[in-house]
Amino acid sequence: MIISIVGAGALGKTYGGLLAQQHEVHYLMRSEYAQVKREGGFTLVFPPPQNSMQIEAPLLHQDAKTLPPSDLVIISTKTTANHELGALLGHCIKENTLVLVIQNGIGNEEWISQLVPHNPLICGVSSMKATRLENNTVEIAYIAELRLAPFQAATEKQCEIIEQAFAATSPAIPVKAYQSYKEIRWRKLIWNVPFSALSIIYQQDTQVLATRQPYVSIVRALMNEVADIAKADGVTISQEHMAKMLEATQKSGPYYPSMYFDSIQGKPIEKEYIIDNVLALARQYHIETPMLNLIQTNLN
Amino acid sequence: MIISIVGAGALGKTYGGLLAQQHEVHYLMRSEYAQVKREGGFTLVFPPPQNSMQIEAPLLHQDAKTLPPSDLVIISTKTTANHELGALLGHCIKENTLVLVIQNGIGNEEWISQLVPHNPLICGVSSMKATRLENNTVEIAYIAELRLAPFQAATEKQCEIIEQAFAATSPAIPVKAYQSYKEIRWRKLIWNVPFSALSIIYQQDTQVLATRQPYVSIVRALMNEVADIAKADGVTISQEHMAKMLEATQKSGPYYPSMYFDSIQGKPIEKEYIIDNVLALARQYHIETPMLNLIQTNLN
Repeated sequence: MIISIVGAGALGKTYGGLLAQQHEVHYLMRSEYAQVKREGGFTLVFPPPQNSMQIEAPLLHQDAKTLPPSDLVIISTKTTANHELGALLGHCIKENTLVLVIQNGIGNEEWISQLVPHNPLICGVSSMKATRLENNTVEIAYIAELRLAPFQAATEKQCEIIEQAFAATSPAIPVKAYQSYKEIRWRKLIWNVPFSALSIIYQQDTQVLATRQPYVSIVRALMNEVADIAKADGVTISQEHMAKMLEATQKSGPYYPSMYFDSIQGKPIEKEYIIDNVLALARQYHIETPMLNLIQTNLN
Repeated sequence: MIISIVGAGALGKTYGGLLAQQHEVHYLMRSEYAQVKREGGFTLVFPPPQNSMQIEAPLLHQDAKTLPPSDLVIISTKTTANHELGALLGHCIKENTLVLVIQNGIGNEEWISQLVPHNPLICGVSSMKATRLENNTVEIAYIAELRLAPFQAATEKQCEIIEQAFAATSPAIPVKAYQSYKEIRWRKLIWNVPFSALSIIYQQDTQVLATRQPYVSIVRALMNEVADIAKADGVTISQEHMAKMLEATQKSGPYYPSMYFDSIQGKPIEKEYIIDNVLALARQYHIETPMLNLIQTNLN
């Protein structure tokens, strides 16, 4: 397949580097283009027992206009760049190009489908921890499942194409296909909303937020409000599931969400997709969300 | 006694009108001066079985400079005017003038004592519900206890002077003297902080906030944080007391705190004394107040 990665940050480079083992992968890279070009590639460092992997002579593009018409386009920009996607998708989309969106938040597919109204669109939610280091290296802390679900014009068959492509990489990326894109988005948001927002507001890592009172009460209140909205939106998330998420976060050590780093680095934060779109749905379904309202103001 | 009321709003007019039965009471009245002057007085409407009371030809002052040197000065301005008090107190304060502060919040005496460093200062906390109506009338919904405690240079004896003055009015105002001004301030703040702030943020009355989830969880969290700061500041407020306050608020019918009306009328709100000063003490005592921090931002 010809694959274009639109937004080759830590996540886009990792997936692209793996898929390039068997496919022709093009990377749209803007801020890092010059450095990667100069150094002739980039490095992926997987957790043991994997070795690190040098991605040599990747097909780099600084301008979306030089991307080739592609069989698969993976959108892995931050959602803060979503207003630019119309321009970025102009050249790589042909008839039947499969569009895979791997982003946080909700409302992503609703927006992107307006830009590619005739293409099969697949929702992807990744929990992989991939961090860009200074020396042109991406460090993958762990390889988590990539969850997929078909959106507009897409089928389960097309999810399988992606599943098989990632199964063939080394290391392989586990992919699981779901029927409802809302289900995988809400299951991620239950975690992302409280931890991304509160890590910025209180400048605390997720282990502290999940462990220490009174932070943990605020986390629980937010999870419950998000679950109420999810339920109105057709996705039931049990109390047991939320308790497990909290426990896992307590055990997984000090960690800061990417939104925290965006914030302290003075970059735009993914508030629109992770917070504002959630609250817009709350209003639509007439769900009261007093704690989310407080959080939203504190992120302004 | 010669008494000056600095800040003759609903509360100042009520206390002044009653004290004028036996004392010479001067009112510093700014926004309402012209109307009260034209109508020759104002009306106090007490709850049954009391009758309404016409206060005729009150000694009105539009300028603090015409207030006489007084034996007792009652400061009943909103705390939002506290930065002006230096100018307002210039003429009515003489040696030994007793200064009674009847305001909400905390830090009031610390500020005012700088303006009258040699005078006996008494802290007063009123829970009387007095509302100014359009037709130059003050409606008193109920007559609550006025709590007093001596601050700088003041003695229990001087609290008694005030106690006796109010005991002699008709209707009489119940006064109770405490030893610690911090105790009466914190006991009021435990209620004022959550209900004043949340009534503005959520545009809900105190009965809704005290009754309906998830508001009541936020109220409880705020009460607990205020109690933590109070404890560090030397005042213990029990869980039982907070539960009682909540129960009383649930039962007392729909009510909006004065800060709510200030907010919807576009007036300055008493945030500095009711919220900011509480948070400054939290920082001083290294108390974590995540919920109060959210509230503070939402009131900005």
